[in-house]
Amino acid sequence: MTDRELLALMETISNWGRWGKDDQRGTLNLLTLEMRARAAKLVCSGESVSMALPLATAPAPDNPTPAFHLMIHTGYDLPAQGLQASSDYLAIPTHGRAITHLDALCHMFWRGMMYNGYPSTEVKHNGAARCGIDTSFEGIIGRGVMLDVPKSKGVEWLEKGEKIFPADLDAAEKHHGVRVGEGDILAVRTGRHRYARTRGNWNPWVEGQAGLEAACLPWLRERGVALLIGDAVSDVTPSGYNEISVPIHAGAIVMMGLPLVDNADLEALSECCARLRRYEFMFMTAPLVIPRATASPINPIAIF
Amino acid sequence: MTDRELLALMETISNWGRWGKDDQRGTLNLLTLEMRARAAKLVCSGESVSMALPLATAPAPDNPTPAFHLMIHTGYDLPAQGLQASSDYLAIPTHGRAITHLDALCHMFWRGMMYNGYPSTEVKHNGAARCGIDTSFEGIIGRGVMLDVPKSKGVEWLEKGEKIFPADLDAAEKHHGVRVGEGDILAVRTGRHRYARTRGNWNPWVEGQAGLEAACLPWLRERGVALLIGDAVSDVTPSGYNEISVPIHAGAIVMMGLPLVDNADLEALSECCARLRRYEFMFMTAPLVIPRATASPINPIAIF
Amino acid sequence: MTDRELLALMETISNWGRWGKDDQRGTLNLLTLEMRARAAKLVCSGESVSMALPLATAPAPDNPTPAFHLMIHTGYDLPAQGLQASSDYLAIPTHGRAITHLDALCHMFWRGMMYNGYPSTEVKHNGAARCGIDTSFEGIIGRGVMLDVPKSKGVEWLEKGEKIFPADLDAAEKHHGVRVGEGDILAVRTGRHRYARTRGNWNPWVEGQAGLEAACLPWLRERGVALLIGDAVSDVTPSGYNEISVPIHAGAIVMMGLPLVDNADLEALSECCARLRRYEFMFMTAPLVIPRATASPINPIAIF
Amino acid sequence: MTDRELLALMETISNWGRWGKDDQRGTLNLLTLEMRARAAKLVCSGESVSMALPLATAPAPDNPTPAFHLMIHTGYDLPAQGLQASSDYLAIPTHGRAITHLDALCHMFWRGMMYNGYPSTEVKHNGAARCGIDTSFEGIIGRGVMLDVPKSKGVEWLEKGEKIFPADLDAAEKHHGVRVGEGDILAVRTGRHRYARTRGNWNPWVEGQAGLEAACLPWLRERGVALLIGDAVSDVTPSGYNEISVPIHAGAIVMMGLPLVDNADLEALSECCARLRRYEFMFMTAPLVIPRATASPINPIAIF
Repeated sequence: MTDRELLALMETISNWGRWGKDDQRGTLNLLTLEMRARAAKLVCSGESVSMALPLATAPAPDNPTPAFHLMIHTGYDLPAQGLQASSDYLAIPTHGRAITHLDALCHMFWRGMMYNGYPSTEVKHNGAARCGIDTSFEGIIGRGVMLDVPKSKGVEWLEKGEKIFPADLDAAEKHHGVRVGEGDILAVRTGRHRYARTRGNWNPWVEGQAGLEAACLPWLRERGVALLIGDAVSDVTPSGYNEISVPIHAGAIVMMGLPLVDNADLEALSECCARLRRYEFMFMTAPLVIPRATASPINPIAIF
Repeated sequence: MTDRELLALMETISNWGRWGKDDQRGTLNLLTLEMRARAAKLVCSGESVSMALPLATAPAPDNPTPAFHLMIHTGYDLPAQGLQASSDYLAIPTHGRAITHLDALCHMFWRGMMYNGYPSTEVKHNGAARCGIDTSFEGIIGRGVMLDVPKSKGVEWLEKGEKIFPADLDAAEKHHGVRVGEGDILAVRTGRHRYARTRGNWNPWVEGQAGLEAACLPWLRERGVALLIGDAVSDVTPSGYNEISVPIHAGAIVMMGLPLVDNADLEALSECCARLRRYEFMFMTAPLVIPRATASPINPIAIF
Repeated sequence: MTDRELLALMETISNWGRWGKDDQRGTLNLLTLEMRARAAKLVCSGESVSMALPLATAPAPDNPTPAFHLMIHTGYDLPAQGLQASSDYLAIPTHGRAITHLDALCHMFWRGMMYNGYPSTEVKHNGAARCGIDTSFEGIIGRGVMLDVPKSKGVEWLEKGEKIFPADLDAAEKHHGVRVGEGDILAVRTGRHRYARTRGNWNPWVEGQAGLEAACLPWLRERGVALLIGDAVSDVTPSGYNEISVPIHAGAIVMMGLPLVDNADLEALSECCARLRRYEFMFMTAPLVIPRATASPINPIAIF
Repeated sequence: MTDRELLALMETISNWGRWGKDDQRGTLNLLTLEMRARAAKLVCSGESVSMALPLATAPAPDNPTPAFHLMIHTGYDLPAQGLQASSDYLAIPTHGRAITHLDALCHMFWRGMMYNGYPSTEVKHNGAARCGIDTSFEGIIGRGVMLDVPKSKGVEWLEKGEKIFPADLDAAEKHHGVRVGEGDILAVRTGRHRYARTRGNWNPWVEGQAGLEAACLPWLRERGVALLIGDAVSDVTPSGYNEISVPIHAGAIVMMGLPLVDNADLEALSECCARLRRYEFMFMTAPLVIPRATASPINPIAIF
């Protein structure tokens, strides 16, 4: 695709106005109460798997602004008598590059507008008047599906900068025996963290990172994906486009109203799905109820 | 009870060693995979209810150390052209008095020891080597039960400092037609937030706050409660005891290994349970995976 | 002194009404423009010495609520091309125990009143309507004098909880060949930080900290001290008084209208004064212009 | 100038290596101890003037990320008895657009390098290993000179986007009867705040803001300015250059090692200089000692 073709594609995937001019929930509208209830029926053994990276408080090439975990009271400085309490303080850059987080729809602006045409100026000093993370305060619960792209390709991980095309998603579906449908929560694995744990981590903005090519945007819209989860940022980097450096972020969040989970850890989920030969599960996450915020750190859970 | 009787009671409720000398999960051991799977079967309509307070960033009598929500990039400072991204920073005192959070078992020490006899010195400047919040990284999922004490008493809320005794819990069970059993997640409502929203909030450590009397400890142990949720701090304040100012915190966390959720918002849940005439539900929460932390802010969810 | 004698002393040192019933500057009125100009004439070599502790962002026994320094953009996350900018965010508990700060006169209340009889209710949720830190927005510039009590006693530091009496101040004056007079800025050193750097730091509210005994209050008033600087909190802890736990804070700030600088680092100044055999200097500090605040972090400077 | 000419100019003004390959202080090296001492002799009446904006905690077009001032304890919620203390919490985006702050030399990178050729990667998650704000911990004290450009042009303020050229600086010198020389601290007034207070404030990155044209860079270097203070960001916006959008920031901070004070309030200083017919003064400021930070909020003071 050329830059010009990408710009044209942006218009074709728009969900602006689809759920009314006041809508702030985007594709989460596709995930109905009935679907939630059906997702609960997927639970068999009760086994659960976390998709969250441990909150990264140490510096690394892929973590230039880590979180802080400050101990306030410890057992070391409190007297060893009577009743005592330890405590701590936590500081989190919500979009941190090694932090598993849910992007709110107010996170991205294209030409001065966010999802549904709200002006970017609705996000002010005191937070987002529209499309903040608190619009999902009741949690995101539904049927989760994982497409384990390296697994379906017979490799351990995708290479840095490797592009995932719609045909790769189709092939993974076929390999796993699963089909992504309306209202589904879709996790796409690139193997980033297996790579990092084997060979050391790296700055994906400098060295590149596997992810979805912009051509996957119509696929995501046709299937009716409600929430997209990546083990990196869903976007391949570099994307090769100049005007829209991260077309998945732009197309999903701004045009489709499709929220993203960035920096999930899909390694344990990959092992579990392979072991159980099952790529669907009950999915649950609930962002912190931070009024008017652009994101929340989360710990998404798959239940089998 | 006298102080002396309370100290004697502490020994009788101990779960130290019950799940092995290396155990760090306490009563969460009571919540088996099978129970998780059974809890999923409670889902009917798919309706979900959050039990989290909005993250409180303004100081108030009940919130002396608020959280911070710092906007980093807004629609006001970014040009209204091309692709742009808003972002923010979040700082949270994990045990903040108006913050819905899950206490880890490393949060309380009694006479220099935490749950299972681990020395308090295992909680150092770099966090908790034992019983940190990350022991629950796979989420807490099970059958939730709410005991709405004011509802069962026919009042809007309990008064400041009002004590809840085992007989009140029994009466609430009878009123609701539900029985708390092994591995259950129990939420006990006092109506704190309805009171605060009606009459203004207050400092519960100065003016008092309704909660469980220490006599409820054996009840909690006998029933096999896996997780205890309060809309304040579960403990009544003032407790009336000198040596152990917060006996529920001490007895539950240190002696029983029973983690607590503090400062939940149970008002919407109360309305939902009353409307549906149903006091059990699927419960899900997943703490942030903060290595070695003493607590995590959470957004616990009930699914009906 | 007994508690009763201390209460009586409080009345005798009052400056309420001395500079009019609308005054909000207290003893800073003693520091005239002419004195400022004369202080500038003390400058000889131009050497300057900071009296500020580095802003402490790590928790420690003497620093239970540290400041935050949050990096927003770093050289690691920005591409190494074109023009780029690093940035950060700073969060400061203004009265933090390891933070060098200037207390405003609205910081302390005695029996519901602050300096000059203003009711404490003038300090609300939106800050101090009276006696806020911004009353000193033009800076505090004058003659600084240091009394290095351990130096004059021939010791490295005062012991934890050691009391400084008026006779000790007189002896230090004699030892240094300097005399504290009207409008002077007085720094009193206990050696706290030399002690901490040698033996490790500690919680001064648990283990005690050297400082001025309440008997120094009349001395401070007679001499006409305009600003008092301590390397801890000026008050000795424990003070030994029940009704007024920190009598220097109460007597200076509330009764005399004498602002305090807490947690200065006087070690470099001590070395410089000893080397130059000179205990007077031009002093300069300027609080951040924070409307209606109770304090400001500062970096006070001595110029020789 | 064309973009290409600007790039060429950058090389000609470099001070890299001028004070040794380990230097981190840049043009502050020009301000010797002797100059400090001479500056003190400029003090006559002792009158002082603050150049700081009140810390802006309210949203405005020129203040998209304001500071926070959170009251923690107030006279309103504390009992009106005995001794009580108010307190607050302060959070500051150090480079905030309406915050008077001192930029450290680590603030800007050009082609992956900061001043003196240090790699930008020296500014990490834990702050700046080189050229942090704490390199100025002993304060910046010297001879201040103000060039009041609107005054010398006989207007109230410069228009939005109006460019200041070297000839304008020369003309202002002539008008005021002052000459900027080596080691001087130079404040250049555009009248931004008088404009804003008269006509309302605006977003200078959208509507433009008066400031120095890039052609002033050689002038600043020839004169040996040690510190440059602007009532906006010193740079005119828009600058008209594509590759280097803010050439004064790039040229001064990166190439010359000349630190900048942004967003000073020069209105009171303008009135004072005009009244006294005197455009030189003793200047003092001291950044907070924030280890490894990229900036500090300050309250710079002129003493006459």
